[in-house]
Amino acid sequence: MGGVTATYLVHDEKHHLVKKAEGIALGLTIGSWTDLPSLEQQQLKKHKGTIISVEELEEDQWVNTYLGKRVTRGILKIHYPADNYSNDIPAILTTVFGKLSLDGEVKLLDLTLTDDIRANYLGPQYGINGIRNLVGVYDRPLLMSIFKGVIGRSLDDMNAQLRAQALGGIDIVKDDEILFDNPLTPFEKRIRTSKETLTNVYEETGHRTLYAVNLSGRTFDLKEKAKRALDGGADILLFNVFAYGLDVLQSLSEDCELPIPIMAHPAFSGALTPSEFYGVSYPLLLGKLLRLAGADFSLFPSPYGSVALKREETLQIAEKLREKDTYASTFPVPSAGIHPGLVPLLINDFGIDSVINAGGGVHGHPDGAIGGGKAFRRAIDATLQGIPLTEVDDTHVQKALALWG
Amino acid sequence: MGGVTATYLVHDEKHHLVKKAEGIALGLTIGSWTDLPSLEQQQLKKHKGTIISVEELEEDQWVNTYLGKRVTRGILKIHYPADNYSNDIPAILTTVFGKLSLDGEVKLLDLTLTDDIRANYLGPQYGINGIRNLVGVYDRPLLMSIFKGVIGRSLDDMNAQLRAQALGGIDIVKDDEILFDNPLTPFEKRIRTSKETLTNVYEETGHRTLYAVNLSGRTFDLKEKAKRALDGGADILLFNVFAYGLDVLQSLSEDCELPIPIMAHPAFSGALTPSEFYGVSYPLLLGKLLRLAGADFSLFPSPYGSVALKREETLQIAEKLREKDTYASTFPVPSAGIHPGLVPLLINDFGIDSVINAGGGVHGHPDGAIGGGKAFRRAIDATLQGIPLTEVDDTHVQKALALWG
Ligand SMILES: [Mg+2]
Ligand SMILES: [Mg+2]
Repeated sequence: MGGVTATYLVHDEKHHLVKKAEGIALGLTIGSWTDLPSLEQQQLKKHKGTIISVEELEEDQWVNTYLGKRVTRGILKIHYPADNYSNDIPAILTTVFGKLSLDGEVKLLDLTLTDDIRANYLGPQYGINGIRNLVGVYDRPLLMSIFKGVIGRSLDDMNAQLRAQALGGIDIVKDDEILFDNPLTPFEKRIRTSKETLTNVYEETGHRTLYAVNLSGRTFDLKEKAKRALDGGADILLFNVFAYGLDVLQSLSEDCELPIPIMAHPAFSGALTPSEFYGVSYPLLLGKLLRLAGADFSLFPSPYGSVALKREETLQIAEKLREKDTYASTFPVPSAGIHPGLVPLLINDFGIDSVINAGGGVHGHPDGAIGGGKAFRRAIDATLQGIPLTEVDDTHVQKALALWG
Repeated sequence: MGGVTATYLVHDEKHHLVKKAEGIALGLTIGSWTDLPSLEQQQLKKHKGTIISVEELEEDQWVNTYLGKRVTRGILKIHYPADNYSNDIPAILTTVFGKLSLDGEVKLLDLTLTDDIRANYLGPQYGINGIRNLVGVYDRPLLMSIFKGVIGRSLDDMNAQLRAQALGGIDIVKDDEILFDNPLTPFEKRIRTSKETLTNVYEETGHRTLYAVNLSGRTFDLKEKAKRALDGGADILLFNVFAYGLDVLQSLSEDCELPIPIMAHPAFSGALTPSEFYGVSYPLLLGKLLRLAGADFSLFPSPYGSVALKREETLQIAEKLREKDTYASTFPVPSAGIHPGLVPLLINDFGIDSVINAGGGVHGHPDGAIGGGKAFRRAIDATLQGIPLTEVDDTHVQKALALWG
């Protein structure tokens, strides 16, 4: 019987990491051990949490100063037997980081599930290969853009924006994550007219653009609503998974009646990830867990914009999304602060199997969204051909470089 | 038309709080304003976020040192018009703290909903008064206890524990939050035998104890499973809401086919709350939002145990759960580290309308769980009569004081 191994960063003011690890391993499983009669030990053995490893980290004066106490920092790995919980994400999270999340400075860095546990999760139903088949693009990063300022705007406004982005050669256009059901651009009408617009552009130009609609509302209405989205012709569901729950994402993803890719938006996830003392690590939350739960895309803050994510952290997220696995890979989508001049850096950092995602970098182009899209597409092609952007003979690219560098 | 006002604690390295507030108010609503033609301004006016207040806090050298930069700390209040989002918790959280949660050192302190928004939420369906009617106790705090070390134990073990706790005069016995579906103590069998045990004790002693069963599993199975719990005779549902989502709690609470109180467990919530820079404040998450979503009980770390919650924070949680409102009140349940000697402090801090919740403080009593329960009940009665515990002529109380102080 397998289980889940959790990796924690702990800060121990008692300077006894092994004792701390024992306290966690027992406290989150059978409660006590040494005091038990041997018959009970026999009975409870297979339920007991086990320490896999205890690693002491260097003392950090800066952390000591901030916490106002001297702490021993350490990495603890503890294994929780599968016998103890049902095989679902809420039960696993509650076991490994339920009450422990409330117990001082402890951060959940990673989870490793044994194969028998993993067999219960399907992972992405499309993944990078499946999405590439939908778009028909295999040899470059995909290009995505976002509607700009759609709150309070009409359906005509949205469709004009959508048409320009599609004409610019964008592969995927996504709703803003803060666009919810509203009378100006109602869900089904938005889907239908987007489909029309994109079909028109395809017939005119041969370029196919997919539309990702924001799936929102009450949890228990989501499946029925997703079916309506599918019936209406939506290509992808954008989903604010952290305002709901990972298990909801999993349910949407694995539902056979919902053959449609899911794009996980990181909205609200910043409440869980940025502290070095508390919460859940970026690679675990936006990488491994999203993939496990079936996200086909994972958006996360790029290391280039104003939003503060370290390059190393974004690379770790991308690694978890794409590392060799029985699950399909999830498309990494580093987002925010992206303009055409960053394409060489993006491709260098995230490779071809990623999505280049821009908002202002498309819409703010001197030639509008059409020019912005074209600038990105040319920048991508040039970079893959090894041509420095400054040498690209393209007015859209050069105008972008002049504006954003 | 109303909306939601969010209160944030921000740390601004640009030292321009008003500008920061403007950036948030626009960035999370219509995107831009001053550059817009006046016709568009007219059209978008009602969607624009507004700054309610900007308050600069004193500079904190300790924060500057930790962040490695000088920051201006401030409290910003920003109003988001209801026109912009559907009236559900995921949409509200995504709007007010979606991408903002990822944008540097910003913590969501509070949310204030206008009455028209609030009208969509029912709040607790039982609340303090409803629970009191179920238990038949009106003039004292309720007494709750937890099963001890039930993982790997048999149904007989659990029932022996349950019987002892009930005989000790406990009002509510709850499952451990890490007890999930398992072959040893299966959900429905556990409910049925618990009911039998508690009915027997009631017939023997006239004391009624309620049983809170852990509702767990996949999100879309929860309602059906809750109905089975109800049919089987469960009195209360324990729910690890933060491993699911607040909207799921709300759906369970407001379901007319589920007339059963819900006890919200704070498992995993510590991933969101403890940082002073990031996440969501305790009073908002474990207080206001749980009440809005319909929790009848809210468990949170007591200020007396080893788990680090400041007294002030726990009082603020309790205040949000019970302050005068159109919603019923939620029972505050300060938990962890509670023993009979703390009863005067608990009643002083949390009053009569609270639940005194103990684990080790019941089971670890020299006379076992029966003695522990009796010690608590006597300690409560004595405190309400103004008698110091040291003067209580009761062997259970005195043994507890001797052991725990
Ligand atoms: Mg956005
Ligand atoms: Mg517990």
